[in-house]
Amino acid sequence: MTLGELVISPSEYKDRITRIRAALRKRRLRALYLTNPTRILYSTGFAHITTERPLAVVIPAEGSIFLMGPQLESDHVKQECPLVEEIFSYTDYPGQLHPIRHFVKILVGKGYSRSRIATDSAEGAAGGWGYRGPSITGLLRETGFLDGKDIIDNMRLVKSKQELVLLRESAKWSQVAHDILLDNVTAGASDVLIGLKANQEALARMLRRLGQKYRQLKWGLSPVIVGFRGQVGPESAIPHAVFTKRKIRKGDVLVTEAGVEIGGYTSELERTIVVGKPSPRARRYFQAMLRAQSTALKEFRPRTKCSRVDAVARKSIEAEGFGDCLRHHTGHGIGLDAHEPPWLDPGERTIMKTGMVFSCEPGLYIPGYAGFRHSDTVEISGDGMNFITEYPRELDELTI
Amino acid sequence: MTLGELVISPSEYKDRITRIRAALRKRRLRALYLTNPTRILYSTGFAHITTERPLAVVIPAEGSIFLMGPQLESDHVKQECPLVEEIFSYTDYPGQLHPIRHFVKILVGKGYSRSRIATDSAEGAAGGWGYRGPSITGLLRETGFLDGKDIIDNMRLVKSKQELVLLRESAKWSQVAHDILLDNVTAGASDVLIGLKANQEALARMLRRLGQKYRQLKWGLSPVIVGFRGQVGPESAIPHAVFTKRKIRKGDVLVTEAGVEIGGYTSELERTIVVGKPSPRARRYFQAMLRAQSTALKEFRPRTKCSRVDAVARKSIEAEGFGDCLRHHTGHGIGLDAHEPPWLDPGERTIMKTGMVFSCEPGLYIPGYAGFRHSDTVEISGDGMNFITEYPRELDELTI
Repeated sequence: MTLGELVISPSEYKDRITRIRAALRKRRLRALYLTNPTRILYSTGFAHITTERPLAVVIPAEGSIFLMGPQLESDHVKQECPLVEEIFSYTDYPGQLHPIRHFVKILVGKGYSRSRIATDSAEGAAGGWGYRGPSITGLLRETGFLDGKDIIDNMRLVKSKQELVLLRESAKWSQVAHDILLDNVTAGASDVLIGLKANQEALARMLRRLGQKYRQLKWGLSPVIVGFRGQVGPESAIPHAVFTKRKIRKGDVLVTEAGVEIGGYTSELERTIVVGKPSPRARRYFQAMLRAQSTALKEFRPRTKCSRVDAVARKSIEAEGFGDCLRHHTGHGIGLDAHEPPWLDPGERTIMKTGMVFSCEPGLYIPGYAGFRHSDTVEISGDGMNFITEYPRELDELTI
Repeated sequence: MTLGELVISPSEYKDRITRIRAALRKRRLRALYLTNPTRILYSTGFAHITTERPLAVVIPAEGSIFLMGPQLESDHVKQECPLVEEIFSYTDYPGQLHPIRHFVKILVGKGYSRSRIATDSAEGAAGGWGYRGPSITGLLRETGFLDGKDIIDNMRLVKSKQELVLLRESAKWSQVAHDILLDNVTAGASDVLIGLKANQEALARMLRRLGQKYRQLKWGLSPVIVGFRGQVGPESAIPHAVFTKRKIRKGDVLVTEAGVEIGGYTSELERTIVVGKPSPRARRYFQAMLRAQSTALKEFRPRTKCSRVDAVARKSIEAEGFGDCLRHHTGHGIGLDAHEPPWLDPGERTIMKTGMVFSCEPGLYIPGYAGFRHSDTVEISGDGMNFITEYPRELDELTI
């Protein structure tokens, strides 16, 4: 399957709307009120930068889809999103009349005040950057607001053919970016500068190859994410490190990350690499991590409970005596959000189905020394799984 | 004033905690429960990546500051944040017991169940990426939860000397990045690739100069933001554009952006530039924009109402017959968040005080043609204002 442009097609968006409307009718709901930018993107194709300015898309069970938002986004929606049939805009935030009070007037004007409405925000706004305001559920006391996060989130669990095409294209360029990253690793270098260099080169190649087929939908310096995020030497023991002052040294263990946004979708490719000859200690942890990932990967198949994959990875690490090195579960769903349900976690009862996409990334962390984690993106397929990211995983292939 | 490392000093963090505690006692509140990453950073210095995993910092009026969060962040907090005296961690999200239920147990164990607690989230979690869960206010029915967003947000309105040092350092490097950006603008080029090139060069220079004094606190490919964000030619008419396929052409109007994170703080520098000889049409809009900014800048002084600055800029644009080109208010506070209160908006009654910092950025947008906006960061000082960003503003200086 090929897509003319590397985004979800208009007909798939229409199909998503049809499914949302069916879910609303089934629950006897009049409309779905959305504020989360990912849910808005999934349902309408409209990508925007979330700020303090409230913005909501309302998908009624019957009738026109409308958007309520700041004037700043009006031309943007008109230009990008034919699915949104009506736009109601306010001047700006906070405004002489608070935007949420504008929204209330619009909903009342449309006769929604005594309806049952599903929403993904009791506030009525995504609420970024210093936002304050009355909640829409507090102002519309007679409206029956219900939590409706699951309507769209459930649809996102299993990826469509188009979504899989975009994820595979994402992985393809993540691999290119990762290759360029490794080509530039050298003792004495700053990890963030190597990352930016790889970013620029990978993006240049991608834009040259994809040309007019490519469109970045999500805000970011670059649709390419590639680098180390500070996970250098001892700082690699902090799974969510951000930055390190420490230059790369011979003997360091590094943890990489690479992901490229294609049509809003991102895959995840991470590798543990060693600069110079790995010490016996590094080798031991690396092999324990790799065995845990390999063991977990064997469990991905239709009808497996998600918690099982986590249990298997955890047990593999514990069996080698490294239980105290665990810091997180084994992975997460991935698609429009970098992390999304279902989770590979002891508490996740979801049963795997064909078309679900996960990261698989058990990790070992030894404070003051290093962290060891590979992450691959895989899809449930046939009677097992397929790698979406295809990249060397063995220590000798990842030694610089 | 100089700072050894370009971050807020430990003594300023202690002072902030003292002020928070005084505010709690004044309102007879037992504690402040924080989930927003910026408020956590402001009060404790702990910077983290917000994900689906709930994380909260509790600052009691008396007693130890504690953090409740995922195991993933435990070593990180211990290493980075001496102000946090106790850490309670759960295995991962969603967990066999939901993290919010863990938090409830901890709060009950500490005797908070019948206390009055201020919080910045009724949910009890920042709620990123596919997060779902029961609200802490729903589970702790006997606890008196109150909205406490303003406790820290009010403290953030007026910047301290240290904050101003960081903002000025930020502006210094934004200017360097912007110079490099303009050096690389050329017809036929992709705006995002020029931006990444400027990013890499500016960051290399900054790291070379600042060396061990610099530490990036916030997650991002680079602490430098510089580029066009798709605001090229007709797409510059979309204030929150993200990307354009269109290469830069001779005659294009472009809108830039530059900001560098220093100790968590970011300034904002934006310029309208023209590639090649500006047309009379471009010149007319540019001059109207520049006059609106200059007129607004004259109104920044202690005791001015924020709404007045917006009214003056708006009137200037309307007087030239361009009222239909307005799409947003005149600016916003800036500091730890890219946008923060107070707003330069018709609805903002805050009175300007010495030490407040704003962007000043009236804009004109002509759909299908171009957008015109400069943004400068300024501080209220003496009986007027000082530029934090110092950069050419005239058309002949911004013609490439």
